[in-house]
Amino acid sequence: MLKYQYVAGKIKQLIYQQQLPKGTQLANIDGLINQYQVSRSTIVKALNCLERQGVIYQVQGSGIFVRERKKRGYLNFLQSHGFTVDLDDTYGVSKVLNVDLIKPNSKVKDNLQCDDEEDVYFIKRLRYVDGKLYGLEQSYYRKKLINYLNKEIVENSIFSYIQDNYNINIGFSDKYFQVIKLDAETAQYLGLQAGEPALCVEEVFYTTAGEPFDFSTIIYHYENARFCIQNHSK
Amino acid sequence: MLKYQYVAGKIKQLIYQQQLPKGTQLANIDGLINQYQVSRSTIVKALNCLERQGVIYQVQGSGIFVRERKKRGYLNFLQSHGFTVDLDDTYGVSKVLNVDLIKPNSKVKDNLQCDDEEDVYFIKRLRYVDGKLYGLEQSYYRKKLINYLNKEIVENSIFSYIQDNYNINIGFSDKYFQVIKLDAETAQYLGLQAGEPALCVEEVFYTTAGEPFDFSTIIYHYENARFCIQNHSK
Repeated sequence: MLKYQYVAGKIKQLIYQQQLPKGTQLANIDGLINQYQVSRSTIVKALNCLERQGVIYQVQGSGIFVRERKKRGYLNFLQSHGFTVDLDDTYGVSKVLNVDLIKPNSKVKDNLQCDDEEDVYFIKRLRYVDGKLYGLEQSYYRKKLINYLNKEIVENSIFSYIQDNYNINIGFSDKYFQVIKLDAETAQYLGLQAGEPALCVEEVFYTTAGEPFDFSTIIYHYENARFCIQNHSK
Repeated sequence: MLKYQYVAGKIKQLIYQQQLPKGTQLANIDGLINQYQVSRSTIVKALNCLERQGVIYQVQGSGIFVRERKKRGYLNFLQSHGFTVDLDDTYGVSKVLNVDLIKPNSKVKDNLQCDDEEDVYFIKRLRYVDGKLYGLEQSYYRKKLINYLNKEIVENSIFSYIQDNYNINIGFSDKYFQVIKLDAETAQYLGLQAGEPALCVEEVFYTTAGEPFDFSTIIYHYENARFCIQNHSK
């Protein structure tokens, strides 16, 4: 973790632990430099990071203020796979349906920019938050980049595992989504009827070096999954 | 427009006009300084801006590369109201259903942080892209901040008008969304049946000074509206 990320985490923790209400003014930059004993550029980076995360906003010539916190029960739609939740929310759990090593079909090949011969892990999981079924996730990972996965690993956060074991970090992603009517098979997984609505999200994740490593489709349960984006225009 | 935004626009224009394929390496920072005759910090800001927009990615120690462009026909979900489209896409048009000055109900008051006595403009529009109906939008603007709106103004971009006439810029927004089944009235507006699916997006927009000025709800047509987010982890 970089120093500015550490400081950003500390400031965020302070805001949430003290439950500072929206509009609360934080110390100015000099105050924060003094408080955290880091350089000006580290503080500036940390503040920009928190601004992008929707935790604070900076008003030029006026100060640094706390934003309204995301309402509970809404998934942060910009976090990886939509299942990363905030500090005091409970974490999601997974029921793993399968972990298979397969040859990719043409859609997977296109999205992962791989060839016919390349092996990919195919993982199917039901995702739960607070005991509620949020969605069915089907993911493809390139074996070339992530050499080993098994049921035990994918019961937990795959991204944490990948980061820790293969030093692969998410650089960016392309997320495409639309509302659909469920087919009979998917409906059954979600405990719904065919024809009922769902949000279908397809996402390709790239490493910081720009290489696609994960192509995932999540079908979200329309009653259980609700979403939030705390956007910033900068 | 700030200098870095101008330079970012120029680089983006170049990438799109020349249709540079994904993975194309751009000139390095020194090359770009030379090309655009601006300072290093302006180039760095412009590149970070393009990175956040999903146009490029920067690989440390390696270079600056073009990302895959958003597929056509998908709305950029992070842009204002979801109807801002890219350079060579066609722009959305609106059919205005009403523009009324009203007293806010309690939901609107909560979202806009205003009191009972404050007047708000209530605007209802059907939004079209490429001649297709994408959604029904219902927006509330605080008269205190945006003193005058009429039918002619809201047929076009309200945000451009507000920016030009009141010098109000979007600082940030809170976007909450979920999949719903349509009620009979909304279904009729969208040319669909009651009970059919839709994406319902509620968003509060704040000025750069942190004041809420617009609360909007958009119900998107599930067959016509599809979305994209080109996310970046930084």
